[in-house]
Amino acid sequence: MLKKVLILLFGLCLWFIPAPEGIDPQAWHLFAIFITTIFSVVFNAFNILVASIFGLVVSILTGTLEPVEAYSGFSDGIILLIVMAFLIAKAVVKSGLGNRIALMMISRFGHTTLGLGYSLMATDLLIAPAFPSNTARSGLLFPIVFSVSESNDSHPNHPSSKDMGSFLMFVSMFGIGLSSALWLTAMAVNPAGAAIANEFGLNIHFGNWILAAFVPTLVSAIVLPYVVYRIYPPNIKNTPEAPRKAKEHLSEMGSLSRDEWITAVVFSFLVLAWALSDVFSIDKTVVAFLGLGLLVATQVFTMDDIRKEGEALSTMIWFAILYTLSTYLSKLGFMTYVGDMLALQLLGLSWPLAFVILVAVYVLFHYLFVSQTAHLLALFGVFLGAGISAGVPPYLLAFMLLFATNFFSVITPQGSSCNILYISSGYIKPQEVYTYGGLVTLMSFLIYMSIGSAWLMLVFH
Amino acid sequence: MLKKVLILLFGLCLWFIPAPEGIDPQAWHLFAIFITTIFSVVFNAFNILVASIFGLVVSILTGTLEPVEAYSGFSDGIILLIVMAFLIAKAVVKSGLGNRIALMMISRFGHTTLGLGYSLMATDLLIAPAFPSNTARSGLLFPIVFSVSESNDSHPNHPSSKDMGSFLMFVSMFGIGLSSALWLTAMAVNPAGAAIANEFGLNIHFGNWILAAFVPTLVSAIVLPYVVYRIYPPNIKNTPEAPRKAKEHLSEMGSLSRDEWITAVVFSFLVLAWALSDVFSIDKTVVAFLGLGLLVATQVFTMDDIRKEGEALSTMIWFAILYTLSTYLSKLGFMTYVGDMLALQLLGLSWPLAFVILVAVYVLFHYLFVSQTAHLLALFGVFLGAGISAGVPPYLLAFMLLFATNFFSVITPQGSSCNILYISSGYIKPQEVYTYGGLVTLMSFLIYMSIGSAWLMLVFH
Repeated sequence: MLKKVLILLFGLCLWFIPAPEGIDPQAWHLFAIFITTIFSVVFNAFNILVASIFGLVVSILTGTLEPVEAYSGFSDGIILLIVMAFLIAKAVVKSGLGNRIALMMISRFGHTTLGLGYSLMATDLLIAPAFPSNTARSGLLFPIVFSVSESNDSHPNHPSSKDMGSFLMFVSMFGIGLSSALWLTAMAVNPAGAAIANEFGLNIHFGNWILAAFVPTLVSAIVLPYVVYRIYPPNIKNTPEAPRKAKEHLSEMGSLSRDEWITAVVFSFLVLAWALSDVFSIDKTVVAFLGLGLLVATQVFTMDDIRKEGEALSTMIWFAILYTLSTYLSKLGFMTYVGDMLALQLLGLSWPLAFVILVAVYVLFHYLFVSQTAHLLALFGVFLGAGISAGVPPYLLAFMLLFATNFFSVITPQGSSCNILYISSGYIKPQEVYTYGGLVTLMSFLIYMSIGSAWLMLVFH
Repeated sequence: MLKKVLILLFGLCLWFIPAPEGIDPQAWHLFAIFITTIFSVVFNAFNILVASIFGLVVSILTGTLEPVEAYSGFSDGIILLIVMAFLIAKAVVKSGLGNRIALMMISRFGHTTLGLGYSLMATDLLIAPAFPSNTARSGLLFPIVFSVSESNDSHPNHPSSKDMGSFLMFVSMFGIGLSSALWLTAMAVNPAGAAIANEFGLNIHFGNWILAAFVPTLVSAIVLPYVVYRIYPPNIKNTPEAPRKAKEHLSEMGSLSRDEWITAVVFSFLVLAWALSDVFSIDKTVVAFLGLGLLVATQVFTMDDIRKEGEALSTMIWFAILYTLSTYLSKLGFMTYVGDMLALQLLGLSWPLAFVILVAVYVLFHYLFVSQTAHLLALFGVFLGAGISAGVPPYLLAFMLLFATNFFSVITPQGSSCNILYISSGYIKPQEVYTYGGLVTLMSFLIYMSIGSAWLMLVFH
């Protein structure tokens, strides 16, 4: 109760502080609402659904947002893609196909939980260049992680979730950030960033991106799962018998059932359609709608199954709201204002110091964003420009900010749309992400800024 | 399988028929998609969720609608209001308050199922003038109907649903159409209709509306529950012991629990806020969001409870899609085009014939609409103008069309946003509404056109 009161007082104080010169009062009020909403999750005053709903209510009742603006996130393609991916993932699990793929993975890599974590990450890193939507990729990986956890008797919303599932979910979740940083084509906003960098005379393409990225990203991919293993450990670490048992299970299962066949075909179709969606400019969300429609029409996933998936709705509600609040904060000019202020502060600093401050602030800023795309579009140009004026080597700064746009994805639960499936799985609590995601982001920052910077200086001197 | 193929062939034929002169090809294609979607539900080729998803997918992949247009329904205030009302209703039931109110009703009116149906309808007719949103009203009545059914051991998605729940749900659902027809202020679009009628020189206000409406509406309210009782009968008709048992249960329950108290306060707040929302121009949907937020924050309704409410999501998906398809059909001019064509056909007919044709076509047109508001805004003016030119007495026609805008609400499952809670309850199948809702609409049409017309001719001669 005390926490609730303190958070509300904090919000009220912020609200009544006059907006700093140059910031629209409406933007300031929205900032007060948004940051109070986030803090009430961080400090566990309210759960993320309640906090978001109150954020929405206050933004409408105070007239800060019009109802039609405040509700707009609910029809955003990304939000609907997440909802569809969530339901499709459940169908993949229910059909038995998820279990089969999981058993195949366990039979190869299942001696240790850490080994499973690494194998999940390796899979992601390899398939990533074909998936320009990291959200779609999370829709492919999530059901496999889910099935691996279930096959090891680690169940969601249950004490056994910490046995293995929470760890694997977490590794796969932040792994998507790393795989997105590795390839120009692994994340929708990377090419947009390259285009913005181009306006500053930098030529960033598929080839020099992978050259720049592979050293710090692979180091992170090797180090960070082990870090997570220490700070957010699975209760069950060694499962020497698991591969043999998995093989037995597989031979008991026999050949694919009708439902598995249908799911395999639909799933392969989704993989293909998502991979080719940019070439043929097909909307990614409608592909997901079609996939779900086929799975329900063929009774692989039934109406009774959907009736149990209220979690998808609750996730949709909180994510749509946070997404909208952050979008309007950006639209109202709050983000660029702070970016511009920062650029002024950098005048006269040595470039290495300016570089560190810029990247650190860029990463910290992600607490305010509910979309990597929105973050990059709002701030990447501002920060790149400010850094170049301050004498930071342009390629160094550009690549580092582009990598950061991906590796900071787990700094908050809502930091990336591809976190959402993992968090709504019932294996990871939103509050936990603030702690462990924050730590992992810090570690990524340190690796990229040290090894990554050294490598970039070597290659792009 | 044959049905699926036939429906698809029908849709393809319609698609490739050239658009009639004067209709935009895009509007014609959308019409083909929409009507095929509806038919595949009517003829049970697909369930309403699958049919709607395929409708959405086809409309996007063929380029008939842009993705951003096709998804727009998901952020519509009415859709979100339904989702919130759905969850709040579940909280009212879970808290025990719904059960208490239900037991109070049963202890008074519970000797027969028909008696309960009448008492529900009477409640609605009496509270309606204070509720300009019939959707909000459905959010208040639905949990009570649900609890009455549950208290009589009639459970949703279960054979026992037909014992009592299906009947009561159906009576309450179409009862909202009648209560909305009775009062100018019982439905958001009634005043808009009065304003349009004013452009034709007609003065429609609270007083002459109730004068015009009470005779046919009360006759319908007396006759139609009995009609439903015959065509869609409850398996359990007499429960002579129920009132006594209900009283016993009530005394066993003792005084209100913590959860009941909180729910009662929140529920009363909702009643008040919805009733006053037009006076203070408060968004009705945000009131519902606040109500849910309070119930979750106080743990009356928990995250575990929401996890089970996948039905709300599935309802949201199909209703948002149908709503959007219909909205764009109207936006693309399809509706007014057909209305104009009709007006041409009426030239030279006697006015009574023109009157009957106009009202009948106006009612049948509702198969194409997923919103009473959209229907009235698209067609009321066109039909009123055509009828006045054909010599139909203006007040007679205006009132009859305004009443029809309300009593045709159950002609399809998606015919009114206030049907949605009832249909997603698990007591009524969407397909059943096409049959029984169609019959009840026909009966309403006959009562209003005979008794109602005679009364209107007497009063507004």
